[in-house]
Amino acid sequence: MKVSLVTLSALLPSAFALWPLPTGLSLGTTPLKLSKGFDIKIGIPNPPADLVAAVSRAKGFLANDKLQALVVDRGASSASAIAGAKSLPSLTLSLATTAKGSSLKSISAEAIAPIESRVEGYTLTVPADGSGAVLKANSSLGLLHGLTTFGQLWYDLPGPSSRTTYSLSAPIQITDAPAYPYRGFMLDTARNFFPVSDIKRTIDAMSWVKINTLHWHVVDSQSFPLVVPGYTVLSEKGAYSASKVYSPSDVKDIVTYAAARGIDVIPEIDTPGHTSVISKAFPEHIACPEATPWASFANEPPAGQLRLASEATVNFTAGLLKAAAGLFESKFFSTGGDEINANCYTQDNETQASLASSNKTFLQALDTFTQANHAALRSVGKSAVVWEEMVLDNPVTLANDTIVMVWISSADVAAVAETGFRIVHAASDYFYLDCGHGGWVGDFPTGNSWCDPFKTWQHAYVFDPVANLTAAQAERVLGGQSLLWTEQSGPENLDSTTWPRAASTAELFWSGPGGDVQAALPRLHEQVYRFRQRGVAANALQPEWCALRPGACDLTA
Amino acid sequence: MKVSLVTLSALLPSAFALWPLPTGLSLGTTPLKLSKGFDIKIGIPNPPADLVAAVSRAKGFLANDKLQALVVDRGASSASAIAGAKSLPSLTLSLATTAKGSSLKSISAEAIAPIESRVEGYTLTVPADGSGAVLKANSSLGLLHGLTTFGQLWYDLPGPSSRTTYSLSAPIQITDAPAYPYRGFMLDTARNFFPVSDIKRTIDAMSWVKINTLHWHVVDSQSFPLVVPGYTVLSEKGAYSASKVYSPSDVKDIVTYAAARGIDVIPEIDTPGHTSVISKAFPEHIACPEATPWASFANEPPAGQLRLASEATVNFTAGLLKAAAGLFESKFFSTGGDEINANCYTQDNETQASLASSNKTFLQALDTFTQANHAALRSVGKSAVVWEEMVLDNPVTLANDTIVMVWISSADVAAVAETGFRIVHAASDYFYLDCGHGGWVGDFPTGNSWCDPFKTWQHAYVFDPVANLTAAQAERVLGGQSLLWTEQSGPENLDSTTWPRAASTAELFWSGPGGDVQAALPRLHEQVYRFRQRGVAANALQPEWCALRPGACDLTA
Repeated sequence: MKVSLVTLSALLPSAFALWPLPTGLSLGTTPLKLSKGFDIKIGIPNPPADLVAAVSRAKGFLANDKLQALVVDRGASSASAIAGAKSLPSLTLSLATTAKGSSLKSISAEAIAPIESRVEGYTLTVPADGSGAVLKANSSLGLLHGLTTFGQLWYDLPGPSSRTTYSLSAPIQITDAPAYPYRGFMLDTARNFFPVSDIKRTIDAMSWVKINTLHWHVVDSQSFPLVVPGYTVLSEKGAYSASKVYSPSDVKDIVTYAAARGIDVIPEIDTPGHTSVISKAFPEHIACPEATPWASFANEPPAGQLRLASEATVNFTAGLLKAAAGLFESKFFSTGGDEINANCYTQDNETQASLASSNKTFLQALDTFTQANHAALRSVGKSAVVWEEMVLDNPVTLANDTIVMVWISSADVAAVAETGFRIVHAASDYFYLDCGHGGWVGDFPTGNSWCDPFKTWQHAYVFDPVANLTAAQAERVLGGQSLLWTEQSGPENLDSTTWPRAASTAELFWSGPGGDVQAALPRLHEQVYRFRQRGVAANALQPEWCALRPGACDLTA
Repeated sequence: MKVSLVTLSALLPSAFALWPLPTGLSLGTTPLKLSKGFDIKIGIPNPPADLVAAVSRAKGFLANDKLQALVVDRGASSASAIAGAKSLPSLTLSLATTAKGSSLKSISAEAIAPIESRVEGYTLTVPADGSGAVLKANSSLGLLHGLTTFGQLWYDLPGPSSRTTYSLSAPIQITDAPAYPYRGFMLDTARNFFPVSDIKRTIDAMSWVKINTLHWHVVDSQSFPLVVPGYTVLSEKGAYSASKVYSPSDVKDIVTYAAARGIDVIPEIDTPGHTSVISKAFPEHIACPEATPWASFANEPPAGQLRLASEATVNFTAGLLKAAAGLFESKFFSTGGDEINANCYTQDNETQASLASSNKTFLQALDTFTQANHAALRSVGKSAVVWEEMVLDNPVTLANDTIVMVWISSADVAAVAETGFRIVHAASDYFYLDCGHGGWVGDFPTGNSWCDPFKTWQHAYVFDPVANLTAAQAERVLGGQSLLWTEQSGPENLDSTTWPRAASTAELFWSGPGGDVQAALPRLHEQVYRFRQRGVAANALQPEWCALRPGACDLTA
């Protein structure tokens, strides 16, 4: 019962800021304001503490957003209609019938439950007659998402008069649930480091657009900021500095913070490539460490890969992954597997000797290595996530519950799907937020971004998650994510590079494909302005003149 | 006596942070530290107040930068050598022989003196033997630039020990002067608004790399934030909001702040195109206001151009420009002149009637319009700056002292130079900081940036200002600038979009062409890190791993 975006757009008398668009939505045209004593009530016995906290945050946003409608007069001409409008006294959270009698789990518990089992839907009713609004769901996640939606319904009037928080679209009836269970954002904290505060702010922003997964590419060849119990020498010798680390308590802080906002944090320790930095602490486990010319040994400097054919290295890696996995609550852990450089191993006498003594091919050794790592993770309750090479270029034995991420190209999706594994869309040609900023190597003045051009929000928005897939293959698509690799990013441009583009992808995988950019743009502007009100420096999409005049800057306007 | 960049790079034992590179430079290899009582003395009677303030800022940076060297150990291994080093007790500013006896003008006065008459050179001597350093110049601007250079010589040691600020490169002898007198940055504050604090922070950053011109594209079709005495209705009706304006006191604040930092603020009120917003206050002066489809009437929405053939509009425009010019101290004022849309005038009955009654062609009317505007500016002591169309597409009568900015393409430089006017390089294919972020119109999901790709710092750095020019044409090149058009920018990405790329162009036009990016990159990293220490969120150029290992991430490393 999805409302056509074009129809919806025509319905809206002025600005309207829901993002992602609910999958079922009915709007009125009656003004409604929040009562001065407006409150959010939890009509559920013994509510989980993180739900109580979510309600508190929602009330904070209502009090502090102070977002004015994105129309030329910022809503001033509606003032008299609003002055005479009914007041909404309250929003009451309650469990849907099917959940009554059962004990409501916490948001944090539900956020990390098996992905296909998560219940994220909700219904939200905002009457126009002055009676209370009701948010119902079968889950804490659903209630959380409904609270987020409720917070997007309101504007403040401009001017010096006492604050009036209003909607022009009552009564509102929303029945919402995501099209895909995986809606993610990947952050690389190894090429450049991001303080915990940046990650938590990003988690906040993710939650505002119902992104439910932070894929944390925490370490890579350049630095090892993760403090892993039993392996602390890795960060001691491999972090950029003693202060540029994520301690176990930092990780717990991030994981807890995310979970309370409905977000699963899936860590990645990429193997066997992208591991050069391990050589600082364990030189015996790394082939071709910082070998030059780096371009002969790796896709970017510095070169260095785990000696995957060495039994000692297999044991080391499995132990490291298991220890690292213990820091996280997620049921998933990514072991990477991308961009393995053959020459690095060919030139490494140790690896060649290991292969010879074990009478294994490279691929057989990779299979042994991967199985050992995944078995170690499985022993602590984790399913594996891998990059696409692990099923295409270097197909290894993987458990059926493995998730495969497509990154090289969207053209690879069908081939990956055909392997039978679950898929996450993460293709560079649609979802890489870092593309289009030129080549970053030091002596290449004509160098362009390898994944040029810049991926606009529009480009990602019109991606079709099931293009060229059979029905059976399409069933394996869990969702998708934006990704920020940080060779050319740091705290300085994190917000403006990520937002609002990651929100575009969030709507694609929540509301489902088929939206059109013309209808979406005014709502996306609203996100930008609301994000800024909440302290996230989302980037301008257009001149403010356009933001205040929905449609006026369309190509065909 | 320019030191080859390659030679220089080979000379440096570790990090070295001068930017732009002085045109004459001799370095030693002796460690030297700042004395605990280090002071900067002004050995000049009755120094101008803004020079005294510049000295105070320089001392503040020495105390607060706390920048550690960009090497793997951040300088720790130099600690013992530095512990035994001599201490520099002072830096003394003095006038060079040729200036003695003359009264030193203020930085602010010199910053707005006729451009070819400005004296910006200086000599800086930092002995290694514990005697004081000496900065000599014939001008306040020279002393200012020398202070800036002095501030780039120093690092702090890492670690908890008491602060040690040091150089490893004493003795240092610098004889420096710019290759070109115009080194600019253009900011568009009309597509999206920037608070005064953002502009002042940008001015600070500009001064750190010896950029001496802020080309302020203050208004455009989308908004009119400039409060012009006698024409205040323009900003009252045309600013995005009552708070998104630059009052006369704001302008004075910005101009004064810039001048004290050696920066001339050249305002632009673009005419006759890019003026749609004037229709909000003076509809009688604008042809095709917000006409649709906008693409038939303008290069971007909203359409609207001054009725250049109307005598009333000519008088209005001349009056507006004269009044606006009164807010600024610069001897220059840009009247724009780019992207005039013929169809807008063809479709405007009023303009057609004016042309008919005056028996003028469009070009003749434009000539009359331009001459009237420039005469009004000349009456208050201002020379005109125009975009290239005013001498190529629509050649009009211009005074000999007019400066022409090339923006459409670097391929147009020779043709502009052949007209005999002075030139500023501002070509979109090298210097536009906004390119490469996709099309921003609302219903064009496959739209790319019109000036794709992104202009990397490397691309601008290897630009040749005199390529394909005769010697006589080359003489007319005043310099060049980076430009930030802000359809897709705002305060959120101002710093990260502008820096360090605008610094690359600053070095090109200070140090002269011929630098190579391989040698420049380590120094540019230093700028990024020092900018951040000073509160400007310069963007990462590479992973920190690369920043700490000069050359290691070169393509050929």
